[in-house]
Amino acid sequence: MKLTARLSDIKTSEPIVVLNVDDCLKMGVDHTDRVRITGSGSVVSAVVITDYDATRGLVVMSQTLLDRCGVKAGDEVEVVYSPLPESILSIRKKINGGTLGRAEIESVVGDIMAENLSEKEILAFISAFNVNNANIAEVAFLTRAMAATGKTVDLGVKPVFDFHSLGGVPGNKITPVVVSIVASEGLIIPKMSSRAISSACGTSDFVDTFCDVEMDTDALVSAVREAGGVFACGNEDYAPVGSLIIKAERPMGIDPRPMMMASIMSKKVAIGTTHLLVDIPLGKTTKTPDIESARSYAEAIRNLGTLLGIHIECAVTRADQPLGRAIGPLLEARECIEVLEGKDCDPDIVDKACSMAGILLEMAGEKDGKARALEILRSGKAHQKFLQIVKTQNGDPDLRSEDIPVGLFTKDVHAKRNGYVGFIDNHSIVAIAKAAGAPSDIEGGIEMMHKVGDKINEGDVLFRIYAKTASKLDRAIASARSRRPMGVVDDQPITSDQMIIERIPSKEMLDLIRFRN
Amino acid sequence: MKLTARLSDIKTSEPIVVLNVDDCLKMGVDHTDRVRITGSGSVVSAVVITDYDATRGLVVMSQTLLDRCGVKAGDEVEVVYSPLPESILSIRKKINGGTLGRAEIESVVGDIMAENLSEKEILAFISAFNVNNANIAEVAFLTRAMAATGKTVDLGVKPVFDFHSLGGVPGNKITPVVVSIVASEGLIIPKMSSRAISSACGTSDFVDTFCDVEMDTDALVSAVREAGGVFACGNEDYAPVGSLIIKAERPMGIDPRPMMMASIMSKKVAIGTTHLLVDIPLGKTTKTPDIESARSYAEAIRNLGTLLGIHIECAVTRADQPLGRAIGPLLEARECIEVLEGKDCDPDIVDKACSMAGILLEMAGEKDGKARALEILRSGKAHQKFLQIVKTQNGDPDLRSEDIPVGLFTKDVHAKRNGYVGFIDNHSIVAIAKAAGAPSDIEGGIEMMHKVGDKINEGDVLFRIYAKTASKLDRAIASARSRRPMGVVDDQPITSDQMIIERIPSKEMLDLIRFRN
Repeated sequence: MKLTARLSDIKTSEPIVVLNVDDCLKMGVDHTDRVRITGSGSVVSAVVITDYDATRGLVVMSQTLLDRCGVKAGDEVEVVYSPLPESILSIRKKINGGTLGRAEIESVVGDIMAENLSEKEILAFISAFNVNNANIAEVAFLTRAMAATGKTVDLGVKPVFDFHSLGGVPGNKITPVVVSIVASEGLIIPKMSSRAISSACGTSDFVDTFCDVEMDTDALVSAVREAGGVFACGNEDYAPVGSLIIKAERPMGIDPRPMMMASIMSKKVAIGTTHLLVDIPLGKTTKTPDIESARSYAEAIRNLGTLLGIHIECAVTRADQPLGRAIGPLLEARECIEVLEGKDCDPDIVDKACSMAGILLEMAGEKDGKARALEILRSGKAHQKFLQIVKTQNGDPDLRSEDIPVGLFTKDVHAKRNGYVGFIDNHSIVAIAKAAGAPSDIEGGIEMMHKVGDKINEGDVLFRIYAKTASKLDRAIASARSRRPMGVVDDQPITSDQMIIERIPSKEMLDLIRFRN
Repeated sequence: MKLTARLSDIKTSEPIVVLNVDDCLKMGVDHTDRVRITGSGSVVSAVVITDYDATRGLVVMSQTLLDRCGVKAGDEVEVVYSPLPESILSIRKKINGGTLGRAEIESVVGDIMAENLSEKEILAFISAFNVNNANIAEVAFLTRAMAATGKTVDLGVKPVFDFHSLGGVPGNKITPVVVSIVASEGLIIPKMSSRAISSACGTSDFVDTFCDVEMDTDALVSAVREAGGVFACGNEDYAPVGSLIIKAERPMGIDPRPMMMASIMSKKVAIGTTHLLVDIPLGKTTKTPDIESARSYAEAIRNLGTLLGIHIECAVTRADQPLGRAIGPLLEARECIEVLEGKDCDPDIVDKACSMAGILLEMAGEKDGKARALEILRSGKAHQKFLQIVKTQNGDPDLRSEDIPVGLFTKDVHAKRNGYVGFIDNHSIVAIAKAAGAPSDIEGGIEMMHKVGDKINEGDVLFRIYAKTASKLDRAIASARSRRPMGVVDDQPITSDQMIIERIPSKEMLDLIRFRN
């Protein structure tokens, strides 16, 4: 029906239009039904308020709606009845405590992907789809529906291994080490990492300094076929709806567990993962601040894995300080390669990388995985595999850690007293590294000269800040002065040399023969 | 800090501003912190996106934010750090599956009332506060916090009775009858009803045709002291935050049970109710379409009552057709007064009114409540009490049903065949009555000449439409033709003469003596 647009002074965040009741009767539209409005701009959808007193022939709408329709007050628009999307009914059902089936969840995911739902509606869904109101079958349906919004990869071989860290540990640079170790034992591991979101350096940020990380599906498949593993960066080819969900969550500062698990697992489903190791860092800067929440997370994701047919083990790991000494893209690249070259380095990195690689090897049927992983690392086989993968990703096959440049502008921060390093505050370290330019300035970052438990004398260098420019160095120094990144105490704190706090095996060992045939 | 506003083309429904990192350091503001921005208009709150590449001295914001601040691009604004409201942290906790305490719930309700939360944030809270993610203690805290946003009434006497229907039954006009019966037995019943939201006539819409329903607290208290009961209209004096919650729910078409219960009970807490009867109509047009959901609702609200110290009984009632014959303000007023006058009328109204009044009498300690209620109604005592209450509400103390005018324009709808009335569709009846002008035209509405189970001959009048004007009558006729309000069938359907399907007594009888002293 052709109607004339009139400006309303109603202020609502959702699109609402007021229509005369007789006009509604003619269009077959009821109060709270939806209409589609076509002007010269976008076709917009709005909720109808019927009014006997509204003038016939008018559609009363907000300035925002007029703008979206590309019309001004007095212009003519076409208004037609629009059925309520099934997704809205499904979201209502979830808010009312109902259990959604596969088709209902697919309708929601499909409409998020098609941008048929507002951010408000998506947020309402996320809020209702919480840990007490979504069962594991619903999370599995959600995972599959999210995976179906993008490409899926068929590597043509099984099993396909992967590992994933829930994050929150600065300097966690073990990915290329783990991939190189297990790929040199013949495991298939198409590892896709990510760039930093709120941290100072994601795995893809530092790998990007020495080889390509952006790979399309064809490049990924051929690299995996050649070398067994990759250090790629996840992209919008796989489960792209995840980004739209994150966009709705971000302003509220939320990432509820069922949604987080579905986001993670949808990428794994897309890449064809059959065996997954999940690293659950335990610490006050991570998603699981205590052992109970870590175990509960492990239980939930292993159940989800069972429904998805993915064999999942979990390892709860220490996250009480940065891993290794380097934070920032080039610094982390250098330290990572040093580990592979067998150079002297923080034993925590070797312990965590070999523990994780060892679990993956045991998931593939090997015995004494950690010892085997250490042997592979020390033998130089992992380093050879690393260089092979770097080459498939167009990096220098003769890459050496000493060739990695770091920031020219540096500042040492010294201890003001004798004692022991009592704590390192991850949040402060990340904030200082970011102030120094990381991750967008790849030269920026921090090198920790001491870790928790080290004996310190007054005047010792605690950490060194690196920056690309003098002004960014100044900024980082100012940030360091406004915080307390490290504390020196009188008594030596007790520390562990084991990075894995608890290993949580899979619920049932799947028949590997089935995958291998 | 003074900054210059710059227009951004970012489109987000939530307020976000982009700031330079150095400016943020100076203000002590981090990524995703909030700032308050003061221009020449409103002080607005926004979420900060920190950016190293943003120009120092600028605050980049959307046109909507510029407008709200009352500034244009290039103008100077004052930007200061704003702590994250506790309410946001509480909403996040609820979304993450946590249990909220009293103070946390009070922070959310307080910030909704103070309009410190966006509709999106309120909606996220409502969605997360669903039946599987909110326990009854949280609902009780919410109820009390909502009640605390408005006035509370102290009638100075106890017990204080009330009854409440969950609605969805057209023509449910029993309120003045029930109040009059129980008030004539000496019960205190400050009944506050509501106007129609989506129906053709709320209790206050028809009571308003013969006496005042808008009463301030002083008038309410004095009327209750004088007559024992009132037929007032609920207003924004009591638990006003409820309206803001409904405003956030409405566009999503939701009213989840925990929120609905808190909204209802917050008004009862505000008025000082000690004994409440809840009418749970059962039918496909009501909130409880099956007996299991009705029982589950009864269980939940009785538990809530226990925590709030309110003695609650529930009655599940028939809602398979309109109650009585009249739908629409004047028609319902006339029928209601006829019942009190002892005139011949639909026995279902007498049965439901006396059953409900009887339960209230039994809650007050009387025996054989329904029989006693019938006796009071038939003796004319209820009618006398009704006229007394009408007088305290400035109505005509000699009010008679035959003096109530109805719509001049009428149209009879006839049966096209012989048989029995097989069904009456509540939704269609309401839609036709609304098309005829109800409730804003008090003359508009419908009179049902036959009810489910009646024998019908071809040509019999099934129902009569009343309207104030010929054009509204035409509109209602058109609406009736496009629907199927009544069905005539060959075999007589089985009907019940009992309006109460199931009575669900309170969990424990409170010591009435305690209240009466």
